[in-house]
Amino acid sequence: MTTPPNLPAEFALIARHFLPLAGPGALNLGDDAALLTPPPGREMVLSVDAMVAGVHFLPDDPPDLVGRKLLRVNLSDLAAKGATPLGYLMTVSAPRATPDAWFAGFAAGLAADQAAFAVALLGGDTTSTPGPISLSLTIIGHVAPGQMVRRAGARAGDSLWVTGTIGDGALGLAVAQGKLTDATGYLLDRYRLPRPRLGLPIAGIASAGMDVSDGLVQDLGHLCRASGLAAEIEVALVPLSDAARVAGPDWLPTCLTGGDDYELLLAVPPAREPALQQVARQVGLPVTRIGGFGHGAPGVTVRDPSGHTVVVPRAGWSHF
Amino acid sequence: MTTPPNLPAEFALIARHFLPLAGPGALNLGDDAALLTPPPGREMVLSVDAMVAGVHFLPDDPPDLVGRKLLRVNLSDLAAKGATPLGYLMTVSAPRATPDAWFAGFAAGLAADQAAFAVALLGGDTTSTPGPISLSLTIIGHVAPGQMVRRAGARAGDSLWVTGTIGDGALGLAVAQGKLTDATGYLLDRYRLPRPRLGLPIAGIASAGMDVSDGLVQDLGHLCRASGLAAEIEVALVPLSDAARVAGPDWLPTCLTGGDDYELLLAVPPAREPALQQVARQVGLPVTRIGGFGHGAPGVTVRDPSGHTVVVPRAGWSHF
Repeated sequence: MTTPPNLPAEFALIARHFLPLAGPGALNLGDDAALLTPPPGREMVLSVDAMVAGVHFLPDDPPDLVGRKLLRVNLSDLAAKGATPLGYLMTVSAPRATPDAWFAGFAAGLAADQAAFAVALLGGDTTSTPGPISLSLTIIGHVAPGQMVRRAGARAGDSLWVTGTIGDGALGLAVAQGKLTDATGYLLDRYRLPRPRLGLPIAGIASAGMDVSDGLVQDLGHLCRASGLAAEIEVALVPLSDAARVAGPDWLPTCLTGGDDYELLLAVPPAREPALQQVARQVGLPVTRIGGFGHGAPGVTVRDPSGHTVVVPRAGWSHF
Repeated sequence: MTTPPNLPAEFALIARHFLPLAGPGALNLGDDAALLTPPPGREMVLSVDAMVAGVHFLPDDPPDLVGRKLLRVNLSDLAAKGATPLGYLMTVSAPRATPDAWFAGFAAGLAADQAAFAVALLGGDTTSTPGPISLSLTIIGHVAPGQMVRRAGARAGDSLWVTGTIGDGALGLAVAQGKLTDATGYLLDRYRLPRPRLGLPIAGIASAGMDVSDGLVQDLGHLCRASGLAAEIEVALVPLSDAARVAGPDWLPTCLTGGDDYELLLAVPPAREPALQQVARQVGLPVTRIGGFGHGAPGVTVRDPSGHTVVVPRAGWSHF
């Protein structure tokens, strides 16, 4: 590998791995800034997430999956807002000794998901660090004016719905840590590769929504506080995958409180439930009613089939 | 300090330090995403930078200056593009043992500069890290359609201009490292606190532009490659501060190649030089012609007053 005259290795690395990801407006990653023409009459929806090796992913996770997860957790935020992705900016801080193959794999994962989700890289910054690999990604999407699905907006009487199944990501982390076995590999895959639920047109159907990233109970608590409501989860209704059922009931608290689901949590007025079920069928994504919202102090109650309160040992993940 | 029931410490930290920075569209930092309505008929200009303790700032730098530098280096990118800032998103990855006073100082610095530059926080992500403090900031601005000043666009015959003085940031780093003394404190201040040259209306005047962040010679080389031109710097014309002149001629190579200037580097057609000088006078920012562009292999030649080529020992800073 040669570096063009007067160009330090940093630029060669960017040209080799990140330039192929650049979309329109990125100006070939060769300018100080990117240009983006917003679709006329639309509002922009913006979100950012950081991922640090040893915290958000395991240092020996395959780099293509790290890249895909970084993009997908942000796409999941847009999905939860009913927004359509446009593009993203990214920072990569990596130790100088990071092998070129790591960057190649990381970029290959991003390339695969750019194609899958119709987004492109707009800009970025690549730096060294004396610490672990640290990544950030800012995603940009758009919605019709006033149509972004917010956390604040649920009303008493709305029912509580989730997409897909709950807990697979947290169980997958347990598999990666050697605490749980999973012969099928399903759980580990769900931990490593979130499925952003883009394509489900929730704007105009959900009165409130968010994605489940830090644990169902904790995240529902956020939505309750934002909306000023209490919520109840009927634990028997929470959809579990076959692999989660095989893990057994001892793992149910992990499913309810563990992170990395990246499913959507939606408040839906009863009159719009048929509409939700119809669009879900159209896109082939299961949706399940697991409870509802009512007046009361903001908070989450989990009930078993006999109506008793289930004590949830740990509300979710915190960094500090 | 108490944490509300069911709210982990991470959210208390965000509420305490970052919520006061949130602008319109940030939804009180309480949603998955921010909302931004682009000014009608304008193009968006986006840039992102990462800063890592021990690489981009010194671990014992005052945290308010770290926050201000993080914002200002991004504002400088917008200034170089002729764009007007709108807002920003940010990630903060910090060790769990980071004192609360660090966050308080960091946020206070951002608050001061938000007021100074009329921008506000739109969203962010706060995480722990086992490594050094790692920051990223994505800035969003806007320009009239087609008016962004690009790196590609300089023409043979354009003259080469810079704002302010060159080399103070690099000399300030030398002061911080104990390699140089500066009784006035001017150089250290310039290293720690860049002055983004917002307010100089370069759109329609400069044919190309960028900010000088990695060293005058290296950054001019980028502009030459983007524009497909050669450039010459007349070293005697390069504007130096009084403090840099006191440091003496041995430090001139550092001034030409060291980073952290955050001045603007502009290609200006001769017919528009009076316009540049006029707007510069209006905003009170000195601008200096230091050379020009011509046909030839993309690259930078530095000449002394007798016309001899000055050998520049090191082209600039690279992370890899």
